[in-house]
Amino acid sequence: MIQTISSPDNQHIKAAAALRQKKQRDDTGLFLLEGLHLVEAAINEKWLIEQTFFCEDRLARSQIAEFSEKLLANGSKIFAVSSSVFKKIAETDTPQGIIAVARQCRVDLSATTQPAKVGDSLPWVVLDAVQDPGNVGTIVRNADAAGVAGIILTPGCADIYAGKTVRATMGSMFHIPIYKASVQQCLDFFLEREIPVYVADAASAESYAEIDWRLPCAIVFGNEGAGVSELFRQKKTRSVAIPIVGKAESLNVASAAAVILFEAARQRGFSLS
Amino acid sequence: MIQTISSPDNQHIKAAAALRQKKQRDDTGLFLLEGLHLVEAAINEKWLIEQTFFCEDRLARSQIAEFSEKLLANGSKIFAVSSSVFKKIAETDTPQGIIAVARQCRVDLSATTQPAKVGDSLPWVVLDAVQDPGNVGTIVRNADAAGVAGIILTPGCADIYAGKTVRATMGSMFHIPIYKASVQQCLDFFLEREIPVYVADAASAESYAEIDWRLPCAIVFGNEGAGVSELFRQKKTRSVAIPIVGKAESLNVASAAAVILFEAARQRGFSLS
Repeated sequence: MIQTISSPDNQHIKAAAALRQKKQRDDTGLFLLEGLHLVEAAINEKWLIEQTFFCEDRLARSQIAEFSEKLLANGSKIFAVSSSVFKKIAETDTPQGIIAVARQCRVDLSATTQPAKVGDSLPWVVLDAVQDPGNVGTIVRNADAAGVAGIILTPGCADIYAGKTVRATMGSMFHIPIYKASVQQCLDFFLEREIPVYVADAASAESYAEIDWRLPCAIVFGNEGAGVSELFRQKKTRSVAIPIVGKAESLNVASAAAVILFEAARQRGFSLS
Repeated sequence: MIQTISSPDNQHIKAAAALRQKKQRDDTGLFLLEGLHLVEAAINEKWLIEQTFFCEDRLARSQIAEFSEKLLANGSKIFAVSSSVFKKIAETDTPQGIIAVARQCRVDLSATTQPAKVGDSLPWVVLDAVQDPGNVGTIVRNADAAGVAGIILTPGCADIYAGKTVRATMGSMFHIPIYKASVQQCLDFFLEREIPVYVADAASAESYAEIDWRLPCAIVFGNEGAGVSELFRQKKTRSVAIPIVGKAESLNVASAAAVILFEAARQRGFSLS
């Protein structure tokens, strides 16, 4: 059953538009998904979608009908809105005609007894105050592509539920467990389990290519400007660098993550186990 | 000698601001550099800087004095401007207080008898209609970091001299030769020299990890949506994929370039020769 909303002052429209602010997302535990691909990825991975807004000027009736069936089965309410109402919620300049309000999945690191969903020996990824939403989203996508046990975000990271981050993940945020934890909680988690922690640090004398990535491990990528927190540089961790061959000073953090995670994948024969 | 400009209608200010448009850049052969790091990188690599605008509200006098010496030696005219005048030229929200007008370096592929500047056996990178300035700039930076013979941009690529592209290169555009050529010119260039051409294609059955990257080669990365041109998919080239381990559909083109170029660097022992 599809309801029609014609006023931009409708309460559902106002509530959805408010989710563009982090405070509203934090308070409600909801976030926005924009575009067919992202909504489909969320449905496929059984994330809860509470409401969906279709813009009938931007999507074919057949597409709306096909999607509505999946969305109703998922429990979503469905609204049809005009272009001008739709623009009140849309974050992108050329929205695809579908925006969903989904429920955040808060995964508790302390309740995790072992890497969830995927093989025990896959690496963990820790993002330590990586602040650019595009970088966080791209690393989630790279990590999903290379195969990881999970991703931990420390305070100071871009909000995983911000529109820019969500879109940069290209749906990968629904495929892998993503946790929030402090630097100390992170270290405790890995040290208690005797999982070695590698810290990506351009100043390190040790090359990532010399590491045996077939064993369980965690890899920490730091802030774009400041690098990783002091606590991660302690003796119990090991720093690794990507050797720079030319004259570039460094790699962008998302590219560095791609290089190290795919070296790990290569060593493991591109296998999930 | 530093001249002061107080009017936003000054001819130098108007001419510099116009360089934010591609047509003006193409017509004049000039482009803008914003920020200390980029201007320094250009000076170090002996690129010609015609004019430099300092914003005295945003830079310390000592920094301006130090830079002015280098800039005068380079042949640049130097202007001191107020914050409001400076904002007429600046492209970023929080400009660093220095913007330079530099001369483009048009490198002719047909005049190239061999890879310039660096070792003969380094890979070439071809960007085929990669349209996002951030992607083009990041790949230039990744390529510089991994070590390449040169980069060729086909029509449809983001303008290498656009502000966003320039900033994403983080100065790497001054370190390696960058050429413009048609797809056919590209293919002719490599086939005449018997340099094998690898095409990054997610649908390929061959893994990048199986290739011997120690030999001279060219690697083609395609458009974000459409991939590489049909002409590059012909029999004389060989396609390679990055195997996806998890559920992600693909990698972003800049991350894919980082993965393949650093596998090549790893196989060559991270050496420039």
